[in-house]
Amino acid sequence: MDRKFHLAVAQVGGIQPDEDRSTVVRRLVDLLDDAHRQAASFVVFPELTLTTFFPRYWAEDRDDMHSFFETEMPSAEVKSLFDRAAELEIGFYLGYAELTADGRRYNTSILVDSSGAVVGKYRKIHLPGHAERIEGLRAQHLEKRYFEVGDLGFGVFDVDGVKFGMCLCNDRRWPEVYRVLALQGADVVVLGYNTPTEVPGWREEPHAKMETHLLSLRAGAYQNAVWVAAAGKSGDEDGAHMIGGSAIVAPSGEVLAKARTEDDEVVVAEVDLDYSQSYRESVFNFEAHRRPEHYSLIVDRVGRGEPLPVSFD
Amino acid sequence: MDRKFHLAVAQVGGIQPDEDRSTVVRRLVDLLDDAHRQAASFVVFPELTLTTFFPRYWAEDRDDMHSFFETEMPSAEVKSLFDRAAELEIGFYLGYAELTADGRRYNTSILVDSSGAVVGKYRKIHLPGHAERIEGLRAQHLEKRYFEVGDLGFGVFDVDGVKFGMCLCNDRRWPEVYRVLALQGADVVVLGYNTPTEVPGWREEPHAKMETHLLSLRAGAYQNAVWVAAAGKSGDEDGAHMIGGSAIVAPSGEVLAKARTEDDEVVVAEVDLDYSQSYRESVFNFEAHRRPEHYSLIVDRVGRGEPLPVSFD
Repeated sequence: MDRKFHLAVAQVGGIQPDEDRSTVVRRLVDLLDDAHRQAASFVVFPELTLTTFFPRYWAEDRDDMHSFFETEMPSAEVKSLFDRAAELEIGFYLGYAELTADGRRYNTSILVDSSGAVVGKYRKIHLPGHAERIEGLRAQHLEKRYFEVGDLGFGVFDVDGVKFGMCLCNDRRWPEVYRVLALQGADVVVLGYNTPTEVPGWREEPHAKMETHLLSLRAGAYQNAVWVAAAGKSGDEDGAHMIGGSAIVAPSGEVLAKARTEDDEVVVAEVDLDYSQSYRESVFNFEAHRRPEHYSLIVDRVGRGEPLPVSFD
Repeated sequence: MDRKFHLAVAQVGGIQPDEDRSTVVRRLVDLLDDAHRQAASFVVFPELTLTTFFPRYWAEDRDDMHSFFETEMPSAEVKSLFDRAAELEIGFYLGYAELTADGRRYNTSILVDSSGAVVGKYRKIHLPGHAERIEGLRAQHLEKRYFEVGDLGFGVFDVDGVKFGMCLCNDRRWPEVYRVLALQGADVVVLGYNTPTEVPGWREEPHAKMETHLLSLRAGAYQNAVWVAAAGKSGDEDGAHMIGGSAIVAPSGEVLAKARTEDDEVVVAEVDLDYSQSYRESVFNFEAHRRPEHYSLIVDRVGRGEPLPVSFD
């Protein structure tokens, strides 16, 4: 890709529990074609793109959820997406539930280059929600039950000459994620999400949900001088509502493109990597301004603790 | 202070080079009285509150700038502010240029409790700008010339029963700052700023200046489940313009109160520490969700470097 290229996010409307992979993949190929018509050379798909957001359902035996997981990528059903993308010479990001040969389960995303090769993988680290059933809920949020914490770190990968960092959904609310990616030279951070309007135990007002989603993307882009692109699975799934707001954010912190609907929808913006560079040479010149000797608590503590003593006159 | 209390930010309009300390302190006392009338029990004043923003001026000999520095706090002129605050039983945050007995210069802020005692001190760590003269500028930005990097870390201090963290101006754009304060249990992060509309080498559009200011405060508040209060020195100083936008932000990331003018102006909002708690027990339950084993680059690297290798199938 050049220093300037068109980036697309492909929002996916609700996927119902009885919708099969082939039907979903046909929708994704339509979105890919739409992105191609809009001159995109890279497309971001959501988290857990291929099925309904199954962590809302309780299963005593985790193995009962195996039908929602992929054991190979591309699977037979997803191969048509890989083939079409390679034909159009478009790279993409795709999130899915991964079941490894040795029985491990991850909430995973991959980067695929314009030749159809998988060039990067990420396994979600900040798993939200809970591991045990909570009674009286319309929808559970059992990511801590069905997935292990990812074991690949926050990686940055070369895709057709551009450095892409990846994360997934809840990761986008944690400033450490963008920073670790930016410190590895990421130019673009891409992510998928499924963000229910109601989450057990969260006391947010409904209107705040969209605000904190965009706030997190915008702060991550600005404070790290990277482009951020986020694709949601949105709208109604089996009676549970998830926010839309798939968006592309510039290093100025401004939302340049945002989905209007909660359905399948492509939005595109032009990325200019030289614009990131201007921020990296001024306000966010890390080499000139960062002071890691004062950041050690970020790795030395997990939770909140007591103030460190400070001596002053 | 109770779990609910009124917090004020006192924005200060431009201070011209010939305005003496006593005149400035009278303005601060008026702002304090205004905050008291609005039921505030704590007031945030700006960065370098007592003089014009002198880092815009070049001096070959740093000692020529000593008239802008304080050698004791409270100084004779500032004592009337301390006295009035103690009389009203109001605590406050105040930024000023500090010259120590052994000749060190810091961009400093203090916390003063409702009895008039200095209970916390911070010396600015993220100094923006440059150390040498840049020709052809209307205004220099010589913080790296006139100040040393602070040596007290990011401290959290008890003020009348509430844990306050402090920072100054450019610090607010760095997510590490809020995180280090939150990991020490800060309830409220207070800061002062002087933010020129034009900064040498920054390619921001003018409208973005207010946006990135508020974005940084909002992300810091939300992602750390703290209240954030920021007071600016604003408007025209000797022909250079500085943004207003003094504001109080809730842990939802929402701006609850914001200055309307670029002049001396007090804005007040009610802080509810129980509201912070609801975020700390859910989305930002650090103990449950943070994964410091994946954050080590934040302290191991200063600037941007190469991607770490990732092995995946």
